Amino acid sequence: MKVVKFGGSSLASGEQFEKVARIVTGDPERRVVVVSAPGKRFEDDIKTTDLLITLANTIIAGDAYTEAFEDVLERFTAIVTYLGLDEAVLSDIRTKLTERIETYKHDEDRLMDALKSSGENENAKVMAAYLTKLGTKASYVSPDEAGMLVTDEPGNARILPEAYDHLYRLREREEVLVIPGFFGYSKENNIVTFPRGGSDITGSIVAAGLQASLYENFTDVDSVYSVNPNLVENPHEMKEITYREMRELAYSGFGVFHDEALLPVVEKKVPVCIKNTNHPEAPGTMIVDNRVPDKMPVLGIASDKGFLSINLTKYLMNRQVGFGRRLLEILETEGISFEHTPSGIDNMSVILREHQVQNGKEERILSRIRQELDVVDVSIERNLALVMVVGEGMARTVGVASKATAALGDAGVNIKMINQGSSETSMMFGVDDRDANLAVKSLYHAFFPND
Amino acid sequence: MKVVKFGGSSLASGEQFEKVARIVTGDPERRVVVVSAPGKRFEDDIKTTDLLITLANTIIAGDAYTEAFEDVLERFTAIVTYLGLDEAVLSDIRTKLTERIETYKHDEDRLMDALKSSGENENAKVMAAYLTKLGTKASYVSPDEAGMLVTDEPGNARILPEAYDHLYRLREREEVLVIPGFFGYSKENNIVTFPRGGSDITGSIVAAGLQASLYENFTDVDSVYSVNPNLVENPHEMKEITYREMRELAYSGFGVFHDEALLPVVEKKVPVCIKNTNHPEAPGTMIVDNRVPDKMPVLGIASDKGFLSINLTKYLMNRQVGFGRRLLEILETEGISFEHTPSGIDNMSVILREHQVQNGKEERILSRIRQELDVVDVSIERNLALVMVVGEGMARTVGVASKATAALGDAGVNIKMINQGSSETSMMFGVDDRDANLAVKSLYHAFFPND
Repeated sequence: MKVVKFGGSSLASGEQFEKVARIVTGDPERRVVVVSAPGKRFEDDIKTTDLLITLANTIIAGDAYTEAFEDVLERFTAIVTYLGLDEAVLSDIRTKLTERIETYKHDEDRLMDALKSSGENENAKVMAAYLTKLGTKASYVSPDEAGMLVTDEPGNARILPEAYDHLYRLREREEVLVIPGFFGYSKENNIVTFPRGGSDITGSIVAAGLQASLYENFTDVDSVYSVNPNLVENPHEMKEITYREMRELAYSGFGVFHDEALLPVVEKKVPVCIKNTNHPEAPGTMIVDNRVPDKMPVLGIASDKGFLSINLTKYLMNRQVGFGRRLLEILETEGISFEHTPSGIDNMSVILREHQVQNGKEERILSRIRQELDVVDVSIERNLALVMVVGEGMARTVGVASKATAALGDAGVNIKMINQGSSETSMMFGVDDRDANLAVKSLYHAFFPND
Repeated sequence: MKVVKFGGSSLASGEQFEKVARIVTGDPERRVVVVSAPGKRFEDDIKTTDLLITLANTIIAGDAYTEAFEDVLERFTAIVTYLGLDEAVLSDIRTKLTERIETYKHDEDRLMDALKSSGENENAKVMAAYLTKLGTKASYVSPDEAGMLVTDEPGNARILPEAYDHLYRLREREEVLVIPGFFGYSKENNIVTFPRGGSDITGSIVAAGLQASLYENFTDVDSVYSVNPNLVENPHEMKEITYREMRELAYSGFGVFHDEALLPVVEKKVPVCIKNTNHPEAPGTMIVDNRVPDKMPVLGIASDKGFLSINLTKYLMNRQVGFGRRLLEILETEGISFEHTPSGIDNMSVILREHQVQNGKEERILSRIRQELDVVDVSIERNLALVMVVGEGMARTVGVASKATAALGDAGVNIKMINQGSSETSMMFGVDDRDANLAVKSLYHAFFPND
């Protein structure tokens, strides 16, 4: 049994619904469909979810919201009309939205979650109605019915372990099930949305819970590329990528898949296939636990900006048992998570995301380090970008570091930091923000000379 | 005023004493002399300190120790006789040794410290007597008289801050002062030896306390070499090296100077000159706070073996605030200090010196990591060598990493780890123990093509 998830652009219009229905009905194994809200139909279009957020904010501000309400309805009207579905589908959407507004209008957080998630919820109903109309036995299954139990913090749902057992029971259902992404229900029976990568998380949880043979994630690209296609023309298309590689790349700004969304399928070892709704015959990219080694040591290159480095120098630092722990403890009590801690003999750096150090936190951290660790020489270096070179094959290949550093050197990129751990699945370079794109391009051309 | 320190090989024989005296009297600024015990005269010779340790162990074992005692005396007899000094010098040594044995024979630790340090102590008296005989006004100054106050743990003396003030008062003395290295006196009036790099530490403390204009450290090489001369013929001789560079190299097995010994002069910014007793006209190597930049990005290359890496993998590790701190805390409570912590996204390694993890500690640490950090995938990799490429010029030069990794790649060395911190004074490569020498040689030839 396969779980199929469709993103916003795959469900943006009636035409897209037709493609999705063809995909779903084209394989009897595709038994569970997870849907996003209708996305953008064109460059400057507004996503339904954003229209819903505007609606919620208008209500919260106490302003007249008829226009915002109709903007949402219009998106569904276009789809329902195009597909020739029963008028009742539309009036149900209108009723449901009105109901939610009435129920939650005095609780801002809950109202936001209830409306924000309505795009997925109503879209699932439309999809179920459409499949039914086409003669496929299909049902909308609400996350409540599915047993998608989550924690109760608005906008920050975490799945509860028992949800997986509930979901497993859906295997008994014989019709195609359409489940809205992006939210679950708490034990207090509240609608609670996931923090990020919303519908991807739902799809991943459902696939894990159902112990699916495959989790197909349909989006608008033929495959995952080895490098950001905005930087390089016709970049290499990946056939297979391991969870580990995907995670290293997702971390460093690869947009295709949010890394936290992968966790449920990683744990249950459900393979994932990234496919294109607009070109379903393309094989897509498989995300797997282990892949067949190929000749390419490097599979992907990515970068992310907005890091800073706290640099400390203290003579004989490495002789002081507990020094590193105390440094990390200061950061921990300030609620800061760090990425890397490269070190020399008498110096240590902590790399972290810049946005964590704001509103005077910087000065407090520096002064705590000076006082509590008795470090005279401590400074902050901003505008760091991290460039990741990722590939399981790197461990088996001599000379990867050499090729990478030569490419950066030839491009005139100053390497501020190198971090290669014992895992050898990735190599990280710290460079100036301004050099990030140049670094990625030069590394790509070094490792993918034929693309 | 200069403080001059002579190592064991510089004081191994009467001939060496003559050279030392010429050096001391050749510059009126050389006002304080710190001496080691007589060292080896030839390859298979035994150092006086080792003879003294044997003597102490013989006494502790309750065995007859006349022979061991005479072995020590013989070394001094040879020197005193060669120099034509008064017989009283020798009988004083005999009396003093006998006295120490009588005083401490019921306290093993104190006996060891008292005898172990006698080589330096008696040698200082011999040197003072010889300088006096040559017509130079000179006095033996015991560490007690000098105010060299240390902590009271046998074999592990740490200097107390007030010692520096006491030492400063020696500036008022007009004659040449000869101070034995390797030990101080505790407030309880015990003789306590320094842990490692013994006489170098004394010299460094004395130079710092006296605020000397220069600390000359006489040994048996013309200069500090950029690479281990056992690996490369006629290696590059350093003219100048910064404290930082010296420390990075000393750490990774450079024998010339023990890194802890440098601390006092680093703090007081007293420049150090490494010179050759057997070739004093050679300029030597200056160790300074800042050096004039030259064209060479790299100044030295060194390696050290006997490291291991604890490798952890945990999905979404970097999202978990406090993870790194808790890992280091486990090591800290086990009394283990670590060297580096390279990391990927979901993995982290801790590099430490192998000798710290023995007698079942390994299994305990692994099981604590598994349990307390909920990490499934943790392993230990042994037989790691760290290779350091060091130079202040590296920060100003693009392409150092590239050159280094190319050299290693061409030599077929598999790079297991790279760690380059924000200080950019050094770059560290983790390689297999067996590849360490090859790595050092190939790096040396890449960065010193003309030597």
